[in-house]
Amino acid sequence: MSPSSTPPGTNQSWGGRFSEPTDAFVERFTASVDFDQRLALQDIQGSVAHATMLARVGVLTDAERDAIVAGLTEIRGEIERGEFQWSVRLEDVHMNIEARLTDKIGITGKKLHTGRSRNDQVATDIRLFLRDEIDVVEVELKRLREGLIALAEREADTIMPGFTHLQTAQPVTFGHHLLAWQEMLARDHERLLDCRGRVNVMPLGAAALAGTTYPIDRHVTAELLGFERPAENSLDAVSDRDFAIEFTSFASILLMHLSRMSEELVLWTSAQFDFIDLPDRFCTGSSIMPQKKNPDVPELVRGKTGRVYGHLMALLTLMKSQPLAYNKDNQEDKEPLFDTLDTVRDCLKAFADMIPAIEARKANMYEAARRGFSTATDLADYLVRRGVAFRDAHEIVGQSVAFGIREKKDLSEMSLDELRQFSDTIEADVFDVLTLEGSVSARHHIGGTAPDQVRAAAQRAREALAALGREA
Amino acid sequence: MSPSSTPPGTNQSWGGRFSEPTDAFVERFTASVDFDQRLALQDIQGSVAHATMLARVGVLTDAERDAIVAGLTEIRGEIERGEFQWSVRLEDVHMNIEARLTDKIGITGKKLHTGRSRNDQVATDIRLFLRDEIDVVEVELKRLREGLIALAEREADTIMPGFTHLQTAQPVTFGHHLLAWQEMLARDHERLLDCRGRVNVMPLGAAALAGTTYPIDRHVTAELLGFERPAENSLDAVSDRDFAIEFTSFASILLMHLSRMSEELVLWTSAQFDFIDLPDRFCTGSSIMPQKKNPDVPELVRGKTGRVYGHLMALLTLMKSQPLAYNKDNQEDKEPLFDTLDTVRDCLKAFADMIPAIEARKANMYEAARRGFSTATDLADYLVRRGVAFRDAHEIVGQSVAFGIREKKDLSEMSLDELRQFSDTIEADVFDVLTLEGSVSARHHIGGTAPDQVRAAAQRAREALAALGREA
Amino acid sequence: MSPSSTPPGTNQSWGGRFSEPTDAFVERFTASVDFDQRLALQDIQGSVAHATMLARVGVLTDAERDAIVAGLTEIRGEIERGEFQWSVRLEDVHMNIEARLTDKIGITGKKLHTGRSRNDQVATDIRLFLRDEIDVVEVELKRLREGLIALAEREADTIMPGFTHLQTAQPVTFGHHLLAWQEMLARDHERLLDCRGRVNVMPLGAAALAGTTYPIDRHVTAELLGFERPAENSLDAVSDRDFAIEFTSFASILLMHLSRMSEELVLWTSAQFDFIDLPDRFCTGSSIMPQKKNPDVPELVRGKTGRVYGHLMALLTLMKSQPLAYNKDNQEDKEPLFDTLDTVRDCLKAFADMIPAIEARKANMYEAARRGFSTATDLADYLVRRGVAFRDAHEIVGQSVAFGIREKKDLSEMSLDELRQFSDTIEADVFDVLTLEGSVSARHHIGGTAPDQVRAAAQRAREALAALGREA
Amino acid sequence: MSPSSTPPGTNQSWGGRFSEPTDAFVERFTASVDFDQRLALQDIQGSVAHATMLARVGVLTDAERDAIVAGLTEIRGEIERGEFQWSVRLEDVHMNIEARLTDKIGITGKKLHTGRSRNDQVATDIRLFLRDEIDVVEVELKRLREGLIALAEREADTIMPGFTHLQTAQPVTFGHHLLAWQEMLARDHERLLDCRGRVNVMPLGAAALAGTTYPIDRHVTAELLGFERPAENSLDAVSDRDFAIEFTSFASILLMHLSRMSEELVLWTSAQFDFIDLPDRFCTGSSIMPQKKNPDVPELVRGKTGRVYGHLMALLTLMKSQPLAYNKDNQEDKEPLFDTLDTVRDCLKAFADMIPAIEARKANMYEAARRGFSTATDLADYLVRRGVAFRDAHEIVGQSVAFGIREKKDLSEMSLDELRQFSDTIEADVFDVLTLEGSVSARHHIGGTAPDQVRAAAQRAREALAALGREA
Repeated sequence: MSPSSTPPGTNQSWGGRFSEPTDAFVERFTASVDFDQRLALQDIQGSVAHATMLARVGVLTDAERDAIVAGLTEIRGEIERGEFQWSVRLEDVHMNIEARLTDKIGITGKKLHTGRSRNDQVATDIRLFLRDEIDVVEVELKRLREGLIALAEREADTIMPGFTHLQTAQPVTFGHHLLAWQEMLARDHERLLDCRGRVNVMPLGAAALAGTTYPIDRHVTAELLGFERPAENSLDAVSDRDFAIEFTSFASILLMHLSRMSEELVLWTSAQFDFIDLPDRFCTGSSIMPQKKNPDVPELVRGKTGRVYGHLMALLTLMKSQPLAYNKDNQEDKEPLFDTLDTVRDCLKAFADMIPAIEARKANMYEAARRGFSTATDLADYLVRRGVAFRDAHEIVGQSVAFGIREKKDLSEMSLDELRQFSDTIEADVFDVLTLEGSVSARHHIGGTAPDQVRAAAQRAREALAALGREA
Repeated sequence: MSPSSTPPGTNQSWGGRFSEPTDAFVERFTASVDFDQRLALQDIQGSVAHATMLARVGVLTDAERDAIVAGLTEIRGEIERGEFQWSVRLEDVHMNIEARLTDKIGITGKKLHTGRSRNDQVATDIRLFLRDEIDVVEVELKRLREGLIALAEREADTIMPGFTHLQTAQPVTFGHHLLAWQEMLARDHERLLDCRGRVNVMPLGAAALAGTTYPIDRHVTAELLGFERPAENSLDAVSDRDFAIEFTSFASILLMHLSRMSEELVLWTSAQFDFIDLPDRFCTGSSIMPQKKNPDVPELVRGKTGRVYGHLMALLTLMKSQPLAYNKDNQEDKEPLFDTLDTVRDCLKAFADMIPAIEARKANMYEAARRGFSTATDLADYLVRRGVAFRDAHEIVGQSVAFGIREKKDLSEMSLDELRQFSDTIEADVFDVLTLEGSVSARHHIGGTAPDQVRAAAQRAREALAALGREA
Repeated sequence: MSPSSTPPGTNQSWGGRFSEPTDAFVERFTASVDFDQRLALQDIQGSVAHATMLARVGVLTDAERDAIVAGLTEIRGEIERGEFQWSVRLEDVHMNIEARLTDKIGITGKKLHTGRSRNDQVATDIRLFLRDEIDVVEVELKRLREGLIALAEREADTIMPGFTHLQTAQPVTFGHHLLAWQEMLARDHERLLDCRGRVNVMPLGAAALAGTTYPIDRHVTAELLGFERPAENSLDAVSDRDFAIEFTSFASILLMHLSRMSEELVLWTSAQFDFIDLPDRFCTGSSIMPQKKNPDVPELVRGKTGRVYGHLMALLTLMKSQPLAYNKDNQEDKEPLFDTLDTVRDCLKAFADMIPAIEARKANMYEAARRGFSTATDLADYLVRRGVAFRDAHEIVGQSVAFGIREKKDLSEMSLDELRQFSDTIEADVFDVLTLEGSVSARHHIGGTAPDQVRAAAQRAREALAALGREA
Repeated sequence: MSPSSTPPGTNQSWGGRFSEPTDAFVERFTASVDFDQRLALQDIQGSVAHATMLARVGVLTDAERDAIVAGLTEIRGEIERGEFQWSVRLEDVHMNIEARLTDKIGITGKKLHTGRSRNDQVATDIRLFLRDEIDVVEVELKRLREGLIALAEREADTIMPGFTHLQTAQPVTFGHHLLAWQEMLARDHERLLDCRGRVNVMPLGAAALAGTTYPIDRHVTAELLGFERPAENSLDAVSDRDFAIEFTSFASILLMHLSRMSEELVLWTSAQFDFIDLPDRFCTGSSIMPQKKNPDVPELVRGKTGRVYGHLMALLTLMKSQPLAYNKDNQEDKEPLFDTLDTVRDCLKAFADMIPAIEARKANMYEAARRGFSTATDLADYLVRRGVAFRDAHEIVGQSVAFGIREKKDLSEMSLDELRQFSDTIEADVFDVLTLEGSVSARHHIGGTAPDQVRAAAQRAREALAALGREA
């Protein structure tokens, strides 16, 4: 009985023990080639390294290795030129490429799979792919951070209302606010690099689940592929999808940050706030309302947060309670990861392009800060410096504000007599602390909103970012 | 200044007030036509109804309506034949179709958008699409339920171990187990129809958010499109995405049920259980291990549970805290919904095809039920019937089991003397209740596992399903 | 060997076969009484019905039943008075109550558990509990809907800007906006009642998983407990937690709606919008900033959305891939459900109290609507009525708006000559359509924002709510 | 007008500007003291450091500082002894403690809040608390890893079937399988320490949102509290909840790992697998089925996975789209974090106690590995070493397996003639590779399942764990 005697229609890579072909719908339902072809170049990269190692340890001859490498190189060209014919029949990216290799170089192509399995092969491909994509993501993330730092320096003296509970709280500088965003992204950047370290570990050599009987040298393959080290345990190596979850968790927190920035950008471009202008090229209009200029980019990014949270939940659910080692469930790891990568990259690019183009409407910001009793805390601090206990000072100012609401006067607009009805500790010098500039400048410590602090913080942020670049 | 004087490259549907064209990346990033073209036929259906209504109320002439309907009919043909050229430049499915219509019939095409907005248009399209897809899903769900009922009847007498905590608990019939699955799906079916009722409400006429100044008649459009009624409030109509969340919630519970069935199918096909055989056509093999026959279909369905949970979470996150009315965020509603629909339909089809093909390995099931002291409860019940309080009977049987574990004997294998060392209430007739058949048949009440009850339950289930068909 | 010879410290309800006592930490870790004691009254209610049925079918004597019912009644009193001593040793609410019953009435207490298991008992308890709580939730939901309808009628003529993309879109009435909120809740109300129907099905009689050998009559118990019907399948009855998921899904959509209302309330109370005033009693202040009055209630409700989404995800994850029938995992069903119920009830109560107390700042709303070219669509519609195709009219108005932005003039502030530079179709009567009142009144169709439509819609909503009350 | 003239019932910490007291239900609804009292000791620790710093920079006198520190020390005693009276009226842990301090030491107590706000105070408290708890979690995690390594060494030679798709794949050693679990936890450990680094940053000094006008020295406070550094930006410092999300993400992946181990433990204790024995003290029984011994601990841990995933989703949802800086929503950050910490600690403790007590049923494991053609890959490798291309070898073995299924013979049970009907390359030495011991030992490379590799890997794991201990 020859190998070719499997029933017509059964899969050529595993059909030996099967007595009927796969159901046509099942074939399509279980195939992954429609999406995993995205791993094609990494699959070839891994195969070249595997063949090179097999030749190094004597499992393949040098001639066999050369034939394989040459064949794979041709296939890479076909894929890059869009000429490769993908077949659902062949299930996945791995079998499509291997089948094409055997077409090209004959029986030697069938030797490539020696000492490996699709289980360790796909895990290797995804890690190579994710590592490459992380590097792309990092470029955009750096660019966005740089844009924020530059804008913060430019706007270090611009005064705007700081909000808590979306109520005017205290005046801050716009530059300080932008650096708050930058701090969020700095943490994301750290998490991305931590994740990259755990991605960069090589499953290849785990074979199906237990390792292989061939005399492979996994350190050689790891070095050829730029991996930090081979994975320590074969069962874990083919079962582990932590890296995908960890990346998606990074992405979820990043998108959460971008959603917060987006929310503020949408608020600030509303007629009610009118704090900033976004250039037309980042906005779209309405098919019915001719006056509309909509902040589509931040809205869309805010909306995409759900998408990424959903992918995180999908992957966590996927892996819950799976017994070792590989199960078919794991085929579902790719699409959420791919879509997360695309979303992260596009959202970062959109923000990195848009942020430097923001125009602050300084007069509107300043006027908004002037309203809403934003220097009330400064008055309380003034009283404390004159010996009133903080809680009592708070109470005195609360009553001043209640008076101001009734009389429609901001604190700085009240007369000294009006102020003194609440505390005779108040003197004429109180008006120095009730200006916006005075309030802002007085918060002069590390992390505070004083313009000089903002400039110093921007400088530190730029240095930290540059240092990160050198380390990575 | 003529309408055509908008800057080169600005969007033709809303560019009037804009001073620079959209950034090329932003154009791609914010466009939806790549995925919303899936709504094309529903978009045309809605436009035909809208034009018909506009003519009915005198906003369009009959000739204008006829030109529009003829043009749209041609476009539908182009789309169905795959000849339509979709353009990212034109943002979405709506503008692509409208632009093509104006190409075809000239200025009359520009009148179609009278009295509506893309906001109510897209909400209408999605509801039409979802309603159609729900009907397809329902067909597969019915087919699966029918398959389960038929198999349950066939296996009404087949004895298997019932498990709690994956420990052998009491013998049940395989038919009874299958009907438990059927009950889960019956609830899903109810939820699907409840959801369909809330989908089938028409947003059209809400226009951008406030309604329109044209003398539209929304009851006419609703009737033409088969909607139950027009939506009550225009702001809500364009903002509401409950229907997508509710469908995805239905889908999540359904997939949860399918994941439980899958888990059992995977367990039952393992060498350790070996309770059933799945035909080869629903399984695949391994590229490295020639002996493998993997239950891919249930594993993949189990894996897809995460995907659907993720989409539910994506949509809930998307809608959280959105102020009224339409925001660009909402563009993100479509892909999760589409993918949920595809996943549900495919998973139901896979199960509906596979379930009738399950072969029970009755001898293995029976033998497994014989082990594990599965009739221990029957012994306790026997003692209770002889006047022992239940809690004391439980204690006596617990000690008998401990003895059995030490001696490696099932209860039915012990001698009367051995049994009587734990209670002298036990008599020779005890062995009648310690058989599997006796145990199963004794659970003879509605919901119980006795074969006659299973047959009666299958009959009731078939009638309930048929009745549902008649109502819907 | 007597029943009392189990090793010291082993559990009295199942210790017979065990050779060592439960580890002390494990005992605490696996016990549920700390949270499931909340089901105590339902547990007693179920036990009374079970005992009554057992006497009806002759399994208990009338005297036994009376002793059990009397004992349970006493225990209920102890619990209600806070005198009951709960013991972690006894694991859960069921064993605590049963142990106390046996303390009180002796060996007859041990007969209560005849023909049931904790598996069907707990499933019954939760359903009874959830049914009761749903009725409480429904009361608050109705009260909130009534408050919204009343406020909408009061504010049917109040004009405010309608937003899309948080940009001024078209003028709407505040009453119309409030009815949009009401529509969301109307759907939630339907979903709640649909869910209640599926909750109200009785698991009792399923026993551990397979039914029982006692001649029970489940219709009797179902009637005594007010259930619609007994569950059809014993395996499903003890495994099913759909009802908890479905309720949590209802709650997630409800909280999503409340989060949207909250977002708007927070925006509207900001200094920038200043559309409404929330009474001080629904707000809190700041420990540092004396001027602050924070909209804590809507913010907190918005925050609680995450909590409920999280519980939904917890329950879906919990049930994923569980093989039948009961597994210990299911103990984790209660806390998420309880917390969801508490959250829903409190959030609805907070809103039902707060909504009627909202004070509209009508002048601010009106002024905001006057800005932002909100009648641009009306101008386009005016042109269309004069024969311009809609798309061309849109373009003309877009250019008028661009002019207005440059000149800082709203459309209604331009001269006729200024308007006519964009289209000579415009005549002096154009100013009638450019007023806010004219714009709003012109949207006069079902679902439109015209004040008369709002009043009619409020009336329909009131009738629909009343009708729902009659049906339920 | 004196400070005491606020309306009766208004809050003493911010009531100055309010004209009516908080609604009683709202007071309860918005209060956090029921759960944030858990931060009491950290709150005091932070206050002591804050007062110390204020004295250092001259804002407080040394006598004031001493009075505050003495008062807080007394309060800590009251709390530790359970004597402290918590009041919902006072909203939260901060105001409860401050009010008590003022009771004790008079007006000086009111000075403590100088230069800070509850916004930076609570952020500091949570970080101190989380840092402490992380250290507790790490102890249990280490203990579990040590237990696994020790058990793996003990079971380095024990042969069991390795599974993929829950189908017998290849023989592995039990020690190798246990080390796969250990690898998962090693990654968790790294993530925990990465997270701890980002937790250990000090918000104090950010005050409400903008910093403070007092001449604070944040480096002093940071050093006193053991923080790595002060947070860089005040707006970010009070808004950031990344640390809670990152910890919950760590916890989700950890619980996912524990759920996988649990799934296997549940499988392995089933009658069908019977691979291990769990001591009675980690199991519970059934109230109805006297024979049951249920693996409650792994089942419950598996169930708790949902809880932790839910908390992650809750926190991500909570933070989505929040504008800066602090909003009341953030009060919802504590309960999910606290419950995640408790769950993680308990689950790790349960596993760390249980794992060393696992008894392998070696004979059952061995017998299971002998069945299921687990050495089929070895036969294929044998053929490849004799020059057959891997894909052809796979096909030959597939046919041998099909023959074995028909004839009910494992590969090692076939005669040489039987084997040679599929390939005449097979010789008598084939039987050396078809033994389980031969198969396992042949996978002799880093990460492979050979017993010597397992022992070496265990040693490396032990060293890595010890090294981690030294660094941290």
